[in-house]
Amino acid sequence: RNSVAHLTHQHLRYNPLRDTWVLVSAHRMKRPWAGQVEKAPEEHIPRHDPRNPLCPGNTRANGEVNPDYDSTFLFENDFPALQPDAPDPGSDQHPLFQSKAARGVCKVMCFHPWSDVTLPLMKRQEVVKVIDKWAELVEELGSTYPWVQIFENKGAMMGCSNPHPHCQVWASSFLPNEPALSDRCQRAYHQKHGEPLLLQYAKQEAEKKERVVVETSDWLAVVPYWATWPYQTLLLPRRHVLRINDLTTEEREGLADIMKRLLTKYDNLFETSFPYSMGWHGAPTGPHLTEDNSHWQLHAHYYPPLLRSATVKKFMVGYEMLAQDQRDLTPEQAAEKLRNLPGEHHTTTK
Amino acid sequence: RNSVAHLTHQHLRYNPLRDTWVLVSAHRMKRPWAGQVEKAPEEHIPRHDPRNPLCPGNTRANGEVNPDYDSTFLFENDFPALQPDAPDPGSDQHPLFQSKAARGVCKVMCFHPWSDVTLPLMKRQEVVKVIDKWAELVEELGSTYPWVQIFENKGAMMGCSNPHPHCQVWASSFLPNEPALSDRCQRAYHQKHGEPLLLQYAKQEAEKKERVVVETSDWLAVVPYWATWPYQTLLLPRRHVLRINDLTTEEREGLADIMKRLLTKYDNLFETSFPYSMGWHGAPTGPHLTEDNSHWQLHAHYYPPLLRSATVKKFMVGYEMLAQDQRDLTPEQAAEKLRNLPGEHHTTTK
Ligand SMILES: O=P(O)(O)O[C@H]1O[C@H](CO)[C@@H](O)[C@H](O)[C@H]1O
Ligand SMILES: O=P(O)(O)O[C@H]1O[C@H](CO)[C@@H](O)[C@H](O)[C@H]1O
Repeated sequence: RNSVAHLTHQHLRYNPLRDTWVLVSAHRMKRPWAGQVEKAPEEHIPRHDPRNPLCPGNTRANGEVNPDYDSTFLFENDFPALQPDAPDPGSDQHPLFQSKAARGVCKVMCFHPWSDVTLPLMKRQEVVKVIDKWAELVEELGSTYPWVQIFENKGAMMGCSNPHPHCQVWASSFLPNEPALSDRCQRAYHQKHGEPLLLQYAKQEAEKKERVVVETSDWLAVVPYWATWPYQTLLLPRRHVLRINDLTTEEREGLADIMKRLLTKYDNLFETSFPYSMGWHGAPTGPHLTEDNSHWQLHAHYYPPLLRSATVKKFMVGYEMLAQDQRDLTPEQAAEKLRNLPGEHHTTTK
Repeated sequence: RNSVAHLTHQHLRYNPLRDTWVLVSAHRMKRPWAGQVEKAPEEHIPRHDPRNPLCPGNTRANGEVNPDYDSTFLFENDFPALQPDAPDPGSDQHPLFQSKAARGVCKVMCFHPWSDVTLPLMKRQEVVKVIDKWAELVEELGSTYPWVQIFENKGAMMGCSNPHPHCQVWASSFLPNEPALSDRCQRAYHQKHGEPLLLQYAKQEAEKKERVVVETSDWLAVVPYWATWPYQTLLLPRRHVLRINDLTTEEREGLADIMKRLLTKYDNLFETSFPYSMGWHGAPTGPHLTEDNSHWQLHAHYYPPLLRSATVKKFMVGYEMLAQDQRDLTPEQAAEKLRNLPGEHHTTTK
């Protein structure tokens, strides 16, 4: 492979999980930026805010009072996009006006009783509790729902409207577009190559090293070869694991460890509480539990918007929405930057 | 069809142009918003700013001096994502590490010599000149390039870094993901139903009326049944037209007219210079010019981010990126709101 050409000239790269291409224009970072600058994240978040509906002991929009929780805390979203009892819109439809029933539940999960911590600043055992809860939810909601989406929107830039550390879990009666596409791609790859796509990928990346950000004996975090967002990463176990609830106690501890390390690097990159949306993809559940899903490999996607600094993000707009995703630095450049950052959190070394 | 259920309960709708589904959760607008508020657009843009590289007579980043133009003005992007001479990254590749050559050109086109106008505030004949230039560019660049993407990022919120009214035109040596997907969907529909997808769709919508925003004898602007963005619209001719350069003189005048009317409604919705990304999709060009492309119908997509006001946008984040697009009001509600707005621009009636 001609890696010099890769670094300095535009080219396309294939995303085998989505069957799409990304335009890599490495030279675009030279462009000056005169456009919109984001607000920097709030710096002084009180540990306990009596008006914050996510804090222990406070009252939420629906009048419920939160318990005085001291670890994770789970509740139903007060304004859910999915409800368990929506009616069927009917099925006698023109091919251009098709609708389908959608049912589900939306939960919110606080990571910690304090508002002024984030995952990288929490203790390893506290992060393990979060992972255990994720696993429990996939087990429980996945017993009937075909898809359980765990996701975290972090930072106001990512539409997160509350600074208290939390994630969401939306379970649905349907397999959403993104996992349906990923399922199709992983299945086809497995059939053709006899090995799960992401298992083969993890092995290759662990050998090549150039896109690795952090690794442990059980886990790997890389800027994927086909990354779209400037500092996007893919986090996955080295062992073949279908779902988050299949992780062993040791693997959960290893996961807490690598998450803390990856997110510390993210925070150190622009010395800010790094915004992102992240989420877990594992084999489908509910009716799919009895199917062969050996083409699947559990993984998390991290999609952070920042490009140049704590306040300048990458805009995925006109060309990206209408034609194709485009990035302004190579995945190898991004990985190298992240890899070389200190492992100590910037706020603790000051 | 059970339209009451559609209005008040969540359901899925099918997007036949992308073969994906969108989650419609009408009841989500009841949710209070405590999250990020955007900066309102600049209100006082000088007609001529001596430091703005897009104004007539000014010097650009590369030292070139703009002519004293009095209509549209076209130049090469000074920091292009696509260049005509990028080397081939080579082809002997592992299936998980595939790359391809990408070549092309990126042009910028100013709509008008003044910085303080936008398309809805320009004269109809001035908008016709923009359309003529678009047609010329598709003709010219499309003689060799398979895809010519015309797009406009409007407003700082959409990553637009210059308030002067302008769009971009990126021509590429490859068919990008979005048009490739749309091509596949339109072709399959045509084969199955014997009529172009969007031609049949336009007829149905013109009859149903509930999603129509503005219409003329030649053109139709609707909030599509499968709209993702809150006030997304689809603009298309009623006649079967493959590409923008196939439009007659009369159709171009009609297009200028409907664009002015649609964009006036957009500006009136929240009494602001409405941000959006928009772009044209027509039949592929270059080597595709000699193929049968009768499944295609020319159309423009408008993707505006605002949801609640001039400063509160819809965040397409965690669930949307990881699982599926989700909207907070129905397309019918959005169309009705837009349709009922006055046809006079809010700044001219004050
Ligand atoms: O070319 P511009 O306007 O400087 O840049 C804008 O549009 C491009 C094409 O959609 C995007 O890639 C950039 O992220 C965005 O900031
Ligand atoms: O549920 P939240 O955090 O209020 O809302 C946020 O995440 C949701 C799921 O990704 C999005 O649909 C919303 O647009 C966003 O503001």
